[in-house]
Formats: sequence, C-alpha cells, structure tokens
Amino acid sequence: MEKNVEISMLCQLYGKLLTEKQYEFIDDYYNNDLSLSEIAENNNITRQAVRDIIKKGEKKLFEYEEKLLFMKRMLNQEKRIEKALSELTKIQKDYSDKEIANVLENVKKELRYLV
Amino acid sequence: MEKNVEISMLCQLYGKLLTEKQYEFIDDYYNNDLSLSEIAENNNITRQAVRDIIKKGEKKLFEYEEKLLFMKRMLNQEKRIEKALSELTKIQKDYSDKEIANVLENVKKELRYLV
Repeated sequence: MEKNVEISMLCQLYGKLLTEKQYEFIDDYYNNDLSLSEIAENNNITRQAVRDIIKKGEKKLFEYEEKLLFMKRMLNQEKRIEKALSELTKIQKDYSDKEIANVLENVKKELRYLV
Repeated sequence: MEKNVEISMLCQLYGKLLTEKQYEFIDDYYNNDLSLSEIAENNNITRQAVRDIIKKGEKKLFEYEEKLLFMKRMLNQEKRIEKALSELTKIQKDYSDKEIANVLENVKKELRYLV
C-alpha cells in the first residue's frame, strides 16, 4: 500500500486519538493535498514545525496500529467480504428463480455495508 | 449488555493500550473471576489499590471506545453478518443443485470468519 493511502486510512481509524493539531495537519497534508508551506502559512508557524507535528502524529498512528491491528483486520475482512460478494454474484447469474435471486440480492446488500 | 461482558470485550479490543497492571488485573477480575482480595494477595498490595487500578483501566477502556467506536462497529457488523448467514441458510435448504449449495457453503464459511 502507498504510504499516503496508509496514513490516510490510519488517520480515519485512529485520528481521534491524536492532538487536534496533529489531526488537522495530517488531514490537510494527506487528504486535502496542501503543502507543508501552505499549512505553515495558514497557521503562522514554520514549515519545520508543521513537519515535526505531522511526523509525531504519523508515529502515533503507526504505534496504535502496531498495538491494535484494526487496519489489518479491516483489510482482511474486506478481502473476505469481496470474495463472498463475487461468489454470490456468480451464482446469482445462474438463477432463474426470482425469489432466490432476491434473497441473494438482499444478502449482498447487507454485506456491502461492511466494506 | 452486562457490564462485565462489555468490559471483557473492550479489554480484548483496547487492552494493549492499558498499562501492564491495568490489563492484568482487569483480566484477572473479569475473565478469570478472581476477587479483588485474591488479586491483592497475589500482588502483595491492598484491595483498595487493586480496585483503583481496575477502575482507572476501565475508565480508559470506555474513553477509547467513546473515541474509536470499534466495539459498536464490530457489534453492528456481527448483526449484519448473522442476518446474511441466516438468509443464506434459508435458501440453501431449498437447493437441490449441489454445485450451488457448495458455493453457498463456501460463502458462509468466509463470513463465519468475520464473527
């Protein structure tokens, strides 16, 4: 996984455990594509200070993942669900019985909520 | 949900964020059914000290859940998966086609890993 995608996901999962500034700067940098200089200017601090805050926040995100493994679990789960969905789609196509096709559709709907 | 079941689940999810003692005492008290006095004796500290450490740990667990909501998400997810599984079992019974029954069985196996 690309580093920026990874940090973006980690921030979604554990962002509430960061300080306000760490969260805000990581969000600006990785999700809103602002540069360090832009964030620095918006907050009246140096570019180096922005970088330090982001680095510290990133470190915390990786530490939380190392302990809790929620991202890893989530990605494994998504893989399993995608597989289940594609199997269901496969047999659904062979189905003429409308009632059963409907049930399969409902099951897929439930599962899609999970990814 | 009963308080001890809830704390046991929270400890499974967030236990790695507690101190070693907090984790150990909560595990002893809620999962291994030791009394406060027994834990106190095993650790050569007072019953009140054990209680304080457990209370502090519990507070942290609830704070993590309040921020991260992983238990809530997990329980919602389990409900959806149980529902999907029971729908699949229902239509599986009506199936004479062996190939399709097998596919459904595989899908259910994937989903059972998730709960």
